[in-house]
Amino acid sequence: MVCMKNIPNIILEKKLLEYLEEDMPFGDVTGQFIPNTQVIAFLKAKESGIVCGLPYVKILMETLGISVKTLVEDGSRIEPGDILLEIQGNSVDIIVVERTVLNFLMRLSGIASQTRSLVERVKDAGLRIRIAGTRKTTPGFRFFEKYAIEMGGGDPHRWDLSDMVLIKENHIKTIGEDGLNDFLKNLHKRVSFSKKIEIEVENLSQLKKILPYNPDIIMLDDFSIEDIHKAVELIEKVNLKQKILLEVSGGITPENIQNYFIEGINILSLGFLTHSVKSLDFSLKINEILNTKG
Amino acid sequence: MVCMKNIPNIILEKKLLEYLEEDMPFGDVTGQFIPNTQVIAFLKAKESGIVCGLPYVKILMETLGISVKTLVEDGSRIEPGDILLEIQGNSVDIIVVERTVLNFLMRLSGIASQTRSLVERVKDAGLRIRIAGTRKTTPGFRFFEKYAIEMGGGDPHRWDLSDMVLIKENHIKTIGEDGLNDFLKNLHKRVSFSKKIEIEVENLSQLKKILPYNPDIIMLDDFSIEDIHKAVELIEKVNLKQKILLEVSGGITPENIQNYFIEGINILSLGFLTHSVKSLDFSLKINEILNTKG
Amino acid sequence: MVCMKNIPNIILEKKLLEYLEEDMPFGDVTGQFIPNTQVIAFLKAKESGIVCGLPYVKILMETLGISVKTLVEDGSRIEPGDILLEIQGNSVDIIVVERTVLNFLMRLSGIASQTRSLVERVKDAGLRIRIAGTRKTTPGFRFFEKYAIEMGGGDPHRWDLSDMVLIKENHIKTIGEDGLNDFLKNLHKRVSFSKKIEIEVENLSQLKKILPYNPDIIMLDDFSIEDIHKAVELIEKVNLKQKILLEVSGGITPENIQNYFIEGINILSLGFLTHSVKSLDFSLKINEILNTKG
Amino acid sequence: MVCMKNIPNIILEKKLLEYLEEDMPFGDVTGQFIPNTQVIAFLKAKESGIVCGLPYVKILMETLGISVKTLVEDGSRIEPGDILLEIQGNSVDIIVVERTVLNFLMRLSGIASQTRSLVERVKDAGLRIRIAGTRKTTPGFRFFEKYAIEMGGGDPHRWDLSDMVLIKENHIKTIGEDGLNDFLKNLHKRVSFSKKIEIEVENLSQLKKILPYNPDIIMLDDFSIEDIHKAVELIEKVNLKQKILLEVSGGITPENIQNYFIEGINILSLGFLTHSVKSLDFSLKINEILNTKG
Amino acid sequence: MVCMKNIPNIILEKKLLEYLEEDMPFGDVTGQFIPNTQVIAFLKAKESGIVCGLPYVKILMETLGISVKTLVEDGSRIEPGDILLEIQGNSVDIIVVERTVLNFLMRLSGIASQTRSLVERVKDAGLRIRIAGTRKTTPGFRFFEKYAIEMGGGDPHRWDLSDMVLIKENHIKTIGEDGLNDFLKNLHKRVSFSKKIEIEVENLSQLKKILPYNPDIIMLDDFSIEDIHKAVELIEKVNLKQKILLEVSGGITPENIQNYFIEGINILSLGFLTHSVKSLDFSLKINEILNTKG
Amino acid sequence: MVCMKNIPNIILEKKLLEYLEEDMPFGDVTGQFIPNTQVIAFLKAKESGIVCGLPYVKILMETLGISVKTLVEDGSRIEPGDILLEIQGNSVDIIVVERTVLNFLMRLSGIASQTRSLVERVKDAGLRIRIAGTRKTTPGFRFFEKYAIEMGGGDPHRWDLSDMVLIKENHIKTIGEDGLNDFLKNLHKRVSFSKKIEIEVENLSQLKKILPYNPDIIMLDDFSIEDIHKAVELIEKVNLKQKILLEVSGGITPENIQNYFIEGINILSLGFLTHSVKSLDFSLKINEILNTKG
Repeated sequence: MVCMKNIPNIILEKKLLEYLEEDMPFGDVTGQFIPNTQVIAFLKAKESGIVCGLPYVKILMETLGISVKTLVEDGSRIEPGDILLEIQGNSVDIIVVERTVLNFLMRLSGIASQTRSLVERVKDAGLRIRIAGTRKTTPGFRFFEKYAIEMGGGDPHRWDLSDMVLIKENHIKTIGEDGLNDFLKNLHKRVSFSKKIEIEVENLSQLKKILPYNPDIIMLDDFSIEDIHKAVELIEKVNLKQKILLEVSGGITPENIQNYFIEGINILSLGFLTHSVKSLDFSLKINEILNTKG
Repeated sequence: MVCMKNIPNIILEKKLLEYLEEDMPFGDVTGQFIPNTQVIAFLKAKESGIVCGLPYVKILMETLGISVKTLVEDGSRIEPGDILLEIQGNSVDIIVVERTVLNFLMRLSGIASQTRSLVERVKDAGLRIRIAGTRKTTPGFRFFEKYAIEMGGGDPHRWDLSDMVLIKENHIKTIGEDGLNDFLKNLHKRVSFSKKIEIEVENLSQLKKILPYNPDIIMLDDFSIEDIHKAVELIEKVNLKQKILLEVSGGITPENIQNYFIEGINILSLGFLTHSVKSLDFSLKINEILNTKG
Repeated sequence: MVCMKNIPNIILEKKLLEYLEEDMPFGDVTGQFIPNTQVIAFLKAKESGIVCGLPYVKILMETLGISVKTLVEDGSRIEPGDILLEIQGNSVDIIVVERTVLNFLMRLSGIASQTRSLVERVKDAGLRIRIAGTRKTTPGFRFFEKYAIEMGGGDPHRWDLSDMVLIKENHIKTIGEDGLNDFLKNLHKRVSFSKKIEIEVENLSQLKKILPYNPDIIMLDDFSIEDIHKAVELIEKVNLKQKILLEVSGGITPENIQNYFIEGINILSLGFLTHSVKSLDFSLKINEILNTKG
Repeated sequence: MVCMKNIPNIILEKKLLEYLEEDMPFGDVTGQFIPNTQVIAFLKAKESGIVCGLPYVKILMETLGISVKTLVEDGSRIEPGDILLEIQGNSVDIIVVERTVLNFLMRLSGIASQTRSLVERVKDAGLRIRIAGTRKTTPGFRFFEKYAIEMGGGDPHRWDLSDMVLIKENHIKTIGEDGLNDFLKNLHKRVSFSKKIEIEVENLSQLKKILPYNPDIIMLDDFSIEDIHKAVELIEKVNLKQKILLEVSGGITPENIQNYFIEGINILSLGFLTHSVKSLDFSLKINEILNTKG
Repeated sequence: MVCMKNIPNIILEKKLLEYLEEDMPFGDVTGQFIPNTQVIAFLKAKESGIVCGLPYVKILMETLGISVKTLVEDGSRIEPGDILLEIQGNSVDIIVVERTVLNFLMRLSGIASQTRSLVERVKDAGLRIRIAGTRKTTPGFRFFEKYAIEMGGGDPHRWDLSDMVLIKENHIKTIGEDGLNDFLKNLHKRVSFSKKIEIEVENLSQLKKILPYNPDIIMLDDFSIEDIHKAVELIEKVNLKQKILLEVSGGITPENIQNYFIEGINILSLGFLTHSVKSLDFSLKINEILNTKG
Repeated sequence: MVCMKNIPNIILEKKLLEYLEEDMPFGDVTGQFIPNTQVIAFLKAKESGIVCGLPYVKILMETLGISVKTLVEDGSRIEPGDILLEIQGNSVDIIVVERTVLNFLMRLSGIASQTRSLVERVKDAGLRIRIAGTRKTTPGFRFFEKYAIEMGGGDPHRWDLSDMVLIKENHIKTIGEDGLNDFLKNLHKRVSFSKKIEIEVENLSQLKKILPYNPDIIMLDDFSIEDIHKAVELIEKVNLKQKILLEVSGGITPENIQNYFIEGINILSLGFLTHSVKSLDFSLKINEILNTKG
């Protein structure tokens, strides 16, 4: 699975270097005093999980003239002690980039690992429900966090406010109950044919109200398990002659997700995947001094 | 405690708006179709903890012409249901900014809450140890994550590679054991008088070796509790006629931190504070439609 | 119809000011010598058509402290001599911004006018075909050109490569005829549920091949009118139990579009709308000197 | 004729990549699923005209690691079917860059073709009048549009407000008729010796008024053909002992330009060259799959 | 004399704030601990000279919400103790901006003062020679340094490589002596009519060679005083029927400039004005605490 | 001595190219007309002093594809006529970059030369006082100016407001005399352990007041020589059991610095080093035309 979204390296470099610059507004006041020689270093796993971010940190290190050999593909399962990258370059450059590389991998691998574990639980349950992310990402880091969800086997969901029409509680509040019918009747005409339309409902009565308007996707927000079952039934009836996808969201965590493994649900989306991540731990240690001039 | 680091609003706005732009490269394809009227909305806590980030989201919302009344100060303890911000503005603007505001507060408050809980445990133990962060922050978001540590009562530690001289394992590996004495002897002369010098050691023997070179701070990395006690003794002897600070780091978590409550330690630093944060949950709901033209 | 995509003014300002800066890297070497007094100026139409861009040039002028009163809404029909904006501000500022304002309006109004004329011809023909743009926009100016299509009553189509899955000739060439079936079979599983899938076909035989894979949209590229009729028939059969949209594209111009007014087509897309635009002409003249200090 | 203004590639790359980024805020959601292999592609002309922009799209493609062999020089006449560029690279990269490359060439070649056709009509008429552009360019794209005018054999005219002193109608209105003499008397002293001074006049009486002040260039704005002849006479008298250049502007189009082929005019400037361009059509098709790993 | 080049404040703010950001990558670690109250401060001169930069530092301070009352106009002569700006605002903001404001004024006023002193010496000598700058400016700060020359009464000369055609020694070396005649013969045809053409010569023989080609300006580079006199004579002969301006440059300093006060020279240009500036000293002191909440 | 602060070349390139872009917003209007051939050029010293900036201009030129061989290391003493760089590349590129390269070296070498001369005078006096810079740098150019101080053998002092706690006159004025004791008592607790704390005093009585609060550094601002001697005595007493560094600042110039060569002073800081620099002169001349195609 190749899934770097085809963004050219030279565009990614720019973004990645901004992260490095954050760490050295006026240079490295420690590293400037040490000898600059060619060294070999290893990036190793310290915990088991799914690794994510290797192609990006490779790009970042290569912009500094560091050679990087990737031993493991993004999205693979890793175990403590696994060597993931063999790194050769100037000591001062490797020391400069070390922390940014680790910060990058720690967070993305944490997200991918959590996602994968849920994806596998769905599969083990014999279901075809997608595990999806949300827009609850760290400000400024969404591209990479969504990518980590994909590496974990999840669905990134819409990227941003420009990406899909999704009518939520605050929209409906603004439209008003009275205006809602008119609004929904005209929506398909007003929205570009290139966009899907999803509507979020808070309860079964709202669901019944919006069903006739034929959205591409319906999201049940914070429904009880009982009501989800009722909603599945309602939608299945309608879906005999069309195909509305059903997304369930709100308060789903690794602890309670089992309850949501219900035939008829197409998507389970969890903010948890990005907003409450336990990082995976890695180390980047210089292993050998080649004693050639940097 | 006012602690926004005095960065002028107009500089912060620029950074904050970049986060908003990440969420709408080509505008809001849903919100463009709803009525644009003045509304009142509330930002509420959904969990208890320490709130952090309110001044920043206020600045962000104000750049969009939204009025924001802050009811609670950053760094305060909050409980579920607490109203934190009263918001008035155009419905379309509030819907546009909602997710960015929540993402911001969720993560920062998670960091502040975790930090505060550790700071209070130190205080309850009758100790004066500082709880410090590290550079293990989300790429691109360090300024705010360090700020959240401060709001939690912690010490941000050095901001970046330009901020303090800190000799670590990879430096020493590069210098080589043979060169280390010479390196340390000359270090004070070479480093600007404006910078503190910290040295990280991996074991007691290294500690003994570097003690005569009079660093401002010594960091014990991954020491056993037993060795920490021995290190404290060694340093106390030296400190009769000077004052080296003692930092302990490596694998400290909320679960095991109690073991590190040892007289003689000045700083406990934890990557955990920023790399494995559980977010705090908030909601931003439109409460009332004022029915005046947006 | 309010359709500025809800991008906050402060974000638009930044983009708009870049256009102004392009026109004055080191300031205005003529305007610096003239008296700076408050003046009133009028922006007037010199041709008839659909005006587009007024809200943006208003935002731009207001960042310079110029007051702008809008007399006509974006998307309205205008006639030569119509006053569109009443402008009051410092003479030197108005002279600085004049050309950028006019360049903006000229191009966007040209696009909107052309689009509207086609949209009305469709309506006059009693059809519900959408007139859509393409990605054939001026580099760096897409947001505004797509907006002008919407102001003209057209559909902007997908914004960019991140916006919808659209399989085209070069993709199919790369996949190879042999691999195509497998590729299409797996596509729905691999693509995020939030995205529509469109497939472009070059001939009827390709159309038949891809029909079973159930894309959301099919694009007929450079089809003869005769083949379009056959394609419509084929798709209508399939659409009895589902709903694939039909887009026709390739070489459509205002001159030949009448031939494409065929029941069963949902979308006609034209690069012509943005790549071969005749501008609409406007003037911005200072009308009165108020003789108060600038 | 090499005429890329000597801007270093690395500076151009930055600008060109911004155009590419506009087309893929979150990557290429289609191309990410196709096989990534080395392929050969051709860029071909689909219409006859003057090609312009090849060096720039070559630079852009090379930043993505694509090899580009240029078969035709910028500014050359091309015919339908001509192969202009031979391209080899990864399929996914070529697909990513295809649209941006085409958009670039389409517009610039349209401008160059139109300009060249007018330049040749001047030459055929046995005259030495320059065909010049204006500042009526697409916001954000002026550098390239002015370059296309030069490739067409035209004169780019001043680049921006910092580039030449040009007194126009709004300046004179602001100065007031009474102040004009004083203003013109002092102008040469106040303007840097490095700048030319041009004055635009609306009628013959204005022309007579400003002639004594010895501008480097005079622009006749919207003059009738008859009045242009009278103006030429007036200026020729003055030019016996100096050399004022004569520019004519306002409403000149390819349709009426023949009327302006008048001995004594030095420059004819047309907004038309950039604001109402018919694009030239090109195609970029993958021709061969090399089946080596991308 | 208003001479800020009409660049809108909002564009200048952006540039000015970059200078401020350079001084506080992570905020003000001192100022964050002091009380934040409204205060009054004064910006005072500590040396006599020509003040320059006041409008810019006013704009900068105002972006921070500080009120600034300007008591003296840019370009005025000031004496030690003169109050130039009355400043009121939050103590923390004034402390944040203090150094950037002073750095700005110090350098610009140094340049303006040196320029003015030379301009006045020319005037005292009863001559009309312009004192001009060069492109020998501090990287990144040219706009303001050229502005300071203008405030001192000097001529900024061309702004950059895009601003005027100036043939120098390295060009001629590249063209070769053999090609020079052809090059000069065709130059007027190839250069846009909107640009002046200047040629630099190293000796009298070169001067004679280029005289027939009718440049707008000739620069004598590093000529002896004797040769300058000869050059003036040669040019005066030619100028009976045209008007070539004469610029003299190379090694001119305040110490030796008197030697260059020669009738017939139009411009004396000195790198010295910007590359070897003695700053003017100012102070910005808080004068009164208003004890109202910041 | 390698002292480029380890900032990766690719980050430096970006900054350096901004300086180049400042000099060519729309390209090089002269160089575009000359032949483009491979040439060899030399960068030579025209004055004696300490060279500084060579690694940076090498990086800049290499981004343009120019080969640069460095014959002299940054920080070395140079004499008129010394060849510092051998340069080979396209004539048009070398001409484009020439001025930016020279501007860079001129200013930095001026700073390094001045610094070195003072450092050597200290050494000749048999003292170990550091010569330090200040924040009185050219806006936007601080990184390089501080680097030049280091190359001259000086201490850069704190880089910015984020870099060290330094209590100055305006802070104390804001705190008020009454609040000062409390402020100082709590300061150590509030400041991160990673920062040094310096306090500036205006007179001996202030010095006595702050001595008990144990700052890391004390700065005597504008003290008379006599008072400096008294201050040294006071601090020496305290320093028997701790080690406060003593910095002296205010009005120190190369002319009067000898008076400050006083045992007990640790640092002499001079704004003069960066705000009143005499540039060092260099030339960059094309030496040989290789007549191969550029």
